[in-house]
Amino acid sequence: MLLGIDIGGTKTAFALAPPDGHALQAHARHPAPRTGAARGDVDRIIEQADALLAESGLAREDVTAVGLSVPGPLDLARGHVVRPPNLPGWQSVPIRDWLAEAFDCPVALENDANAAALAEWRMGAGQGTRDFVYLSMSTGVGGGLVLDGRLHRGRLGTAGELGHVPVVPGGELCACGLRGCLEAYVGGAAWTKRLRASAPSESRVVALAGRADAITTRHLLEAAREGDPFALAEVDFYNRHLAQAIAWLAFALAPEVVALGTIVMAGGKELMLDPIRRRVREMIWPHQAPYMRIEAARLGDRLADWAGICAAIEFVHGSAHPAAQDAAPPAR
Amino acid sequence: MLLGIDIGGTKTAFALAPPDGHALQAHARHPAPRTGAARGDVDRIIEQADALLAESGLAREDVTAVGLSVPGPLDLARGHVVRPPNLPGWQSVPIRDWLAEAFDCPVALENDANAAALAEWRMGAGQGTRDFVYLSMSTGVGGGLVLDGRLHRGRLGTAGELGHVPVVPGGELCACGLRGCLEAYVGGAAWTKRLRASAPSESRVVALAGRADAITTRHLLEAAREGDPFALAEVDFYNRHLAQAIAWLAFALAPEVVALGTIVMAGGKELMLDPIRRRVREMIWPHQAPYMRIEAARLGDRLADWAGICAAIEFVHGSAHPAAQDAAPPAR
Repeated sequence: MLLGIDIGGTKTAFALAPPDGHALQAHARHPAPRTGAARGDVDRIIEQADALLAESGLAREDVTAVGLSVPGPLDLARGHVVRPPNLPGWQSVPIRDWLAEAFDCPVALENDANAAALAEWRMGAGQGTRDFVYLSMSTGVGGGLVLDGRLHRGRLGTAGELGHVPVVPGGELCACGLRGCLEAYVGGAAWTKRLRASAPSESRVVALAGRADAITTRHLLEAAREGDPFALAEVDFYNRHLAQAIAWLAFALAPEVVALGTIVMAGGKELMLDPIRRRVREMIWPHQAPYMRIEAARLGDRLADWAGICAAIEFVHGSAHPAAQDAAPPAR
Repeated sequence: MLLGIDIGGTKTAFALAPPDGHALQAHARHPAPRTGAARGDVDRIIEQADALLAESGLAREDVTAVGLSVPGPLDLARGHVVRPPNLPGWQSVPIRDWLAEAFDCPVALENDANAAALAEWRMGAGQGTRDFVYLSMSTGVGGGLVLDGRLHRGRLGTAGELGHVPVVPGGELCACGLRGCLEAYVGGAAWTKRLRASAPSESRVVALAGRADAITTRHLLEAAREGDPFALAEVDFYNRHLAQAIAWLAFALAPEVVALGTIVMAGGKELMLDPIRRRVREMIWPHQAPYMRIEAARLGDRLADWAGICAAIEFVHGSAHPAAQDAAPPAR
């Protein structure tokens, strides 16, 4: 039995699936533990996994591999979670060893964007493809690349950081400290910040939010649906920068499907998917367009259930896992 | 014995190597045949290959695989050369079948940029790496990606078209018809055109070239070495756009080595390599920099000898070959 665990900033998702991974046998969610110490948090997570196993009539011995989806940055060589901003108290946490000890089996550690890419590839928008790109389009912009049917991690596991490709050299300051990153234009946090600073007081966005500093991307999308000119211009600005990155991917990697997560799923076909597809078509060669589909991600709420499981499947069935890599760790 | 053939616009390179591919057994070059018909040209090429075999005491039966490096675009599903601008009279030429018939063995067909990437990866700047990117930096800008130790082609063989990634959306018109492509900024043809149109008549570049419409990149690099301000600014413009694309590759693919061809080899360390490295470092995270080397390509004149051989090696030892792909052909 595969055990998948997705550790998020607010909740932890657990799932059990047979090694073929075609359906979940059981799943559960719990609020993120906040014991104040990483070791205590991980002990709580192990107890919650034990509870799910017990409910399913299983024991730790039945677990053949654990797939772990955690926020980056990771030190894959050591199996450490380095210092994720949304897991307070976690710093160089040897989570792979801790879980391997508890369950006495291999533990596949992936950053959450790679695990999500594997999940959307196997179970969602990327099913049936060999070359697939996932962009999370969430608060930040994470990415994951499946190329020739394998997750492309790079030696240090740092490949697929699509949120930080430079779309406007010398442009907007990104939360990562660089300028002009894709995330600084189409990340939810950056967009919200820009909207709050720039929304005209008479715009529908401000009316929907109550006040400018309460604006979220949800208000912006609603105002755009109502035809508010400021909101429509903002959506276009968003789509344009995202399309540029997708055109880049088309030339560099020729993916069969590019799947776009949270914000584009919320924006939907008319506000986002179709305009993005149109803009990308203008930026690539005509013969490429029929061979790259641009889709909304599909798993939605189920993503966290599948992320850990699909990390485990990749480990069991897929490419060589970076656990075996010898490279020195990244220190961001 | 592997037979490598690199078909260029002006010459054809032939090479023989044992299947382990560690050294060439023999090689030869001939001016490109110009019989006026593709069938005639290919017959001449086959005769020239026969001659090299005969000189080496070998016959057609000794050839176990042919590796063919040809200018794109290709139709990999059918094994056709589609219509390369520099091979007059060639249109949908079934070169894979023609050569397979002549030598009665498998024929690995690669576009020249992919074959060059394989050659630089196995025998040049990429030796020992698993993730490697090659940029030809020639008249045009071709690219090739080796990821996880395999050439990444994409389903239609259209991946790695790094010359056409959009670096300046809506920017300079590229020869391909799109705007803002990398090649429109750092391709030799585009650069020469821009230099001829913009070089101030009093600049050293014009003096070296004799007149503005005779300027080549060689004159520009020479003038830059002499400290000419116009030339130095042009080199900086060139480096900046190339660095942007390399930073993109760092985040997306995390290659261990990015190898830069013709123009950067000519520009050398002081004018190009070091300034490009410096600019890229400013555009990526500090922890990434030590893990990506930016190097000049190494094979130089020997590239054409190795390109076909390395295409054959990839076919024999490497990843599944797109010959088996079922997708419809690109029609550029």
